[in-house]
Amino acid sequence: MSKTPTLDSIKSIEDIRSMDMEQLKALTDDVRTETIDAVSVTGGHLGAGLGVVELTVALHHVFNTPNDRVIWDVGHQSYPHKILTGRRDRIRTLRQPGGLSGFTKRSESEFDPFGTGHSSTSISAGLGMQMASELKGEDRNVIAVIGDGAMSAGMAYEAMNNAGALDSRLIVILNDNDMSIAPPTGAMSAYLARLISGKTFLSLRDAAKQLAHQLPRFFKEKAAKAEEFARSFVTGGTLFEELGFYYVGPIDGHNLEHLLPILKNVRDTDKGPILVHVVTQKGKGYAPAEHASDKYHGVSRFDVVTGTQLKPPSNAPSYTKIFGESLAKEGAKDKKIVAVTAAMPSGTGIDIFEEQFPDRTFDVGIAEQHAVTFAAGLACEGLKPFCAIYSTFLQRAYDQVVHDVAIQNLPVRFPIDRAGFVGADGPTHAGAYDIGFMASLPNMVVMAASDEAELVHMVATARAYEDGPIAFRYPRGEGVGVEIPEEGVPLEIGKGRIVKQGSKVAILSLGTRLAASLDAAERLEGYGLSTTVADARFAKPLDRDMILELAGTHDMLITIEEGAVGGFGSQVLHLLAAEGALDGSLKIRSLTMEDHYTNHGKPDVMYKENGLDADGIIRAVFEALGKDLNAAIEAGEMA
Amino acid sequence: MSKTPTLDSIKSIEDIRSMDMEQLKALTDDVRTETIDAVSVTGGHLGAGLGVVELTVALHHVFNTPNDRVIWDVGHQSYPHKILTGRRDRIRTLRQPGGLSGFTKRSESEFDPFGTGHSSTSISAGLGMQMASELKGEDRNVIAVIGDGAMSAGMAYEAMNNAGALDSRLIVILNDNDMSIAPPTGAMSAYLARLISGKTFLSLRDAAKQLAHQLPRFFKEKAAKAEEFARSFVTGGTLFEELGFYYVGPIDGHNLEHLLPILKNVRDTDKGPILVHVVTQKGKGYAPAEHASDKYHGVSRFDVVTGTQLKPPSNAPSYTKIFGESLAKEGAKDKKIVAVTAAMPSGTGIDIFEEQFPDRTFDVGIAEQHAVTFAAGLACEGLKPFCAIYSTFLQRAYDQVVHDVAIQNLPVRFPIDRAGFVGADGPTHAGAYDIGFMASLPNMVVMAASDEAELVHMVATARAYEDGPIAFRYPRGEGVGVEIPEEGVPLEIGKGRIVKQGSKVAILSLGTRLAASLDAAERLEGYGLSTTVADARFAKPLDRDMILELAGTHDMLITIEEGAVGGFGSQVLHLLAAEGALDGSLKIRSLTMEDHYTNHGKPDVMYKENGLDADGIIRAVFEALGKDLNAAIEAGEMA
Repeated sequence: MSKTPTLDSIKSIEDIRSMDMEQLKALTDDVRTETIDAVSVTGGHLGAGLGVVELTVALHHVFNTPNDRVIWDVGHQSYPHKILTGRRDRIRTLRQPGGLSGFTKRSESEFDPFGTGHSSTSISAGLGMQMASELKGEDRNVIAVIGDGAMSAGMAYEAMNNAGALDSRLIVILNDNDMSIAPPTGAMSAYLARLISGKTFLSLRDAAKQLAHQLPRFFKEKAAKAEEFARSFVTGGTLFEELGFYYVGPIDGHNLEHLLPILKNVRDTDKGPILVHVVTQKGKGYAPAEHASDKYHGVSRFDVVTGTQLKPPSNAPSYTKIFGESLAKEGAKDKKIVAVTAAMPSGTGIDIFEEQFPDRTFDVGIAEQHAVTFAAGLACEGLKPFCAIYSTFLQRAYDQVVHDVAIQNLPVRFPIDRAGFVGADGPTHAGAYDIGFMASLPNMVVMAASDEAELVHMVATARAYEDGPIAFRYPRGEGVGVEIPEEGVPLEIGKGRIVKQGSKVAILSLGTRLAASLDAAERLEGYGLSTTVADARFAKPLDRDMILELAGTHDMLITIEEGAVGGFGSQVLHLLAAEGALDGSLKIRSLTMEDHYTNHGKPDVMYKENGLDADGIIRAVFEALGKDLNAAIEAGEMA
Repeated sequence: MSKTPTLDSIKSIEDIRSMDMEQLKALTDDVRTETIDAVSVTGGHLGAGLGVVELTVALHHVFNTPNDRVIWDVGHQSYPHKILTGRRDRIRTLRQPGGLSGFTKRSESEFDPFGTGHSSTSISAGLGMQMASELKGEDRNVIAVIGDGAMSAGMAYEAMNNAGALDSRLIVILNDNDMSIAPPTGAMSAYLARLISGKTFLSLRDAAKQLAHQLPRFFKEKAAKAEEFARSFVTGGTLFEELGFYYVGPIDGHNLEHLLPILKNVRDTDKGPILVHVVTQKGKGYAPAEHASDKYHGVSRFDVVTGTQLKPPSNAPSYTKIFGESLAKEGAKDKKIVAVTAAMPSGTGIDIFEEQFPDRTFDVGIAEQHAVTFAAGLACEGLKPFCAIYSTFLQRAYDQVVHDVAIQNLPVRFPIDRAGFVGADGPTHAGAYDIGFMASLPNMVVMAASDEAELVHMVATARAYEDGPIAFRYPRGEGVGVEIPEEGVPLEIGKGRIVKQGSKVAILSLGTRLAASLDAAERLEGYGLSTTVADARFAKPLDRDMILELAGTHDMLITIEEGAVGGFGSQVLHLLAAEGALDGSLKIRSLTMEDHYTNHGKPDVMYKENGLDADGIIRAVFEALGKDLNAAIEAGEMA
């Protein structure tokens, strides 16, 4: 017999609309079961989805999706939503190559009105949709579901500030689980805790009264009567009210008997914007998740009965861990070092530093803009801030990097994790642009680690360098397995290294494509092409001497990097052009990520698709030589 | 007799510390006189500075600057501060080449602890300084002075959220003049208006009581007594209190008798963070400014007696105006067009569109992140948003451009004004990076207008293009004077144009360096070098056919753009490398902004310094030919 009979019975979203309370409750049990089972097979985000099972069912029951737009902020909590909106048959392909995205995605379903991945975008997008519908005279509800952690981002505040002024009918559901990826920090978090502290949730009756108070037009015939009751129930959503929102809550987000009538009332009123404050428990309904400190935020495959996660065997420690440990070591030597993270202490490895130096560690919340300028302020006073932000999230703070750090030449250190392809998280999280947007800035030093030993030295280099800002990028995942030096030794700024000396072809690699470059070089030697491999180390300042020497003494120069056009290869091409090194017969090719977004998948496949593996390098060399690689192999010509 | 005797008497900042009330009042009069007189000569920001004369004097009287850090948000209100901090002798060089910056600048004075220019950075920077001082055990006050308009930016909220959680002693002075550049919008603005509406300012006595209530530790011996009075005076700064700040205000910012004791109390308490809500009048004390709708926000030179601004004669309308008029024309034809601005309706020309289509215009406040994602939401529902943001401010929304627009391939239009050098505003406002950071994104179309007629066609192109996002950049200032077409005609995507046909040298220009390219070409012809000039129009997608043809049929190819390395030249170099067009003897040079920040000055000088004028092009050609230009001229060799 099926473990999920109610879920099995659903043929279309309309079936959820007509269910009664008992059926809906049964449906939540089934959706929870299905979510746990699917993620046990695929790995992925579990805790967030389990926390919103009731909310997901309630939203699809009450609202006319997909004509009504439901936007899941971040989107990692959308697995139950995907199960209910025509994607159950593919739910065990989540985050797998060719399978469903781990976030919402417009191209995947009409029930995903906005693609997400980064946090705190939903209110802005929803407000745009709401205003468009009002301009076009379309009757539509727009609902943004946003977590309490995401509320620390300035973008969410900008959107609320605008929504409050526009008097639009936007509905914001604040999903308050007091837990984003890490426990949230910041005054907003403390404020929300006060709103729900020391009181039980609104009863249905109280909530109705509160609504009557908040939405007098809807209840206008009963308004006078409601008013006299309501005052004592207003729970203090003052901050939101001051920003122009009607505040309703807090409501128990796992209780359909409260959720449904409140959402119906909110749907049927003509007032807005409205903020419904829903309290949920991350990992709800699955004991191993409920009891875990991270609530199974992101998990690998696991055993459903025991909750034990099946981690693939690890060959080497992750770059993240090596960074964290190196920073802690440098921190022990130099008490001016301070660390800044934007709500990602464990994701960035800053937690390792924090364990030893809690007073010198600042978690500013999901607030990358502030993080960077805050670090600039620390640097002004002579401290040595390491502001650790993933490549993709550093995009959020680009102006602060330009305006507050680079123009003032302040020595802020930027460890840039997740630089390059990121595998299962897909294009929203790829670190594709940092080399370009950092190296184009005067004063900025930009390094990239080719292996984990290099990363250790780059942490030391960043500590030692005091002349201005310095960034170093490294990828997601495990190192290549080289020995990790006990002590980092500062590198000479703007100096690369020759890793293998040859004479015909020079491969100039920045960052982690070095191993593929060495592999390619070995195979090119087999084709009779003597090949040099250099590790550039610096995208800025370039090692001019080394690069001009390579260009002057080889027939061909290939640059390779894990990033988009505009970065390292561009810097090298500009240098060579300016120096006249391209005037003669040097053949030059510059390998980058291709000009398209690469869907989530296995990193090896991503490299292959983008021509950034050893095959890709060899193919580029052969094409430059005017030879067809396959033909050459067949003819044994170059063997 | 001097008009400014008290100001004349100041030899050092210490002199202000010891002044009594009467002297301080006299000083404010003198500083106001001096500010008006200086700006009447230099032009620049006037209204903002006049509004904070008393506040400036009060801060330097009460606080121990420069050991205490005073950060002026944006910095355009810092002229009185500059007058009082050792720069009076250069105050009539404001914004002039080689003169004082129009903003605060660390390299200019130890009294400028943080360089500004973009808004809303001061709380973050100040919090960093405050935490650094606490870590280092230094006794210091840090004061961030921020306007009400700047409070709409998410960055300010992120910083407040963090400051509230850190319980730091940071002092934030909210300078509320209900007026930033344009009248502010947003719920925060309405909230502030409610705080000060319908009541007179706090009297000194009331303010002391409020402080007693807010800062009980400082007044602890009197706390119990103060408490009973205080309740009735709490004016409702609840939003700030919920964010963890002690709120004091509102206070009349032009009344030294109120400002001084309150600032002294704030200085002497050990509590924090504190927000002091000061109400001022932009343009205060100069009648023409007070009566102007923009309060003389930014002015050209003017007559002090009449207030009449002396505008230099204009040869052609500004690009901004042409954009606004073109958008309005397109808007009349296509009612799906909507416009989004981030608090810059007149700066972007959106006000021209707004006059005709107020319902289709959205001013979201200083909130670039929200502006872009809001526009993405509008595009999701089939509207055609033009999201007009200066190049330098678009840096604030880079992640939103990547994540919410480009990855989803949503047809948001980005008119990018102030692209390139901006003259007197200097490096903080230069539009140097947009070509690079936009063109590196898959799906993005990037155009640059070479003259005002091209801009008109690009507005039409952006309206017509529905396949994804599209950006078009154009510079600050006046057009070159070409005839403006009655009607914009959509350009073919990814097609450039040959403007002048030659055979030896090809100059490939993107954007407004076209005129300099034509000038250079003519002169090169004089040296016997037949020169082609092409207007690329598109940085992405490139006109591959045209560019490969140019490379294949000329001895030399020069690219030129008004931007940093990583942009158009990089795209061209990558194309040519990939196609093997650099394998042979083609000489290639790629002219960009040089790798340093260019100080404020005359645009012509900036072009010259960066080698982006006709001389620079000719010099690059001669260097590539291995010939010395001066020697050639002297020898008459190439004439």
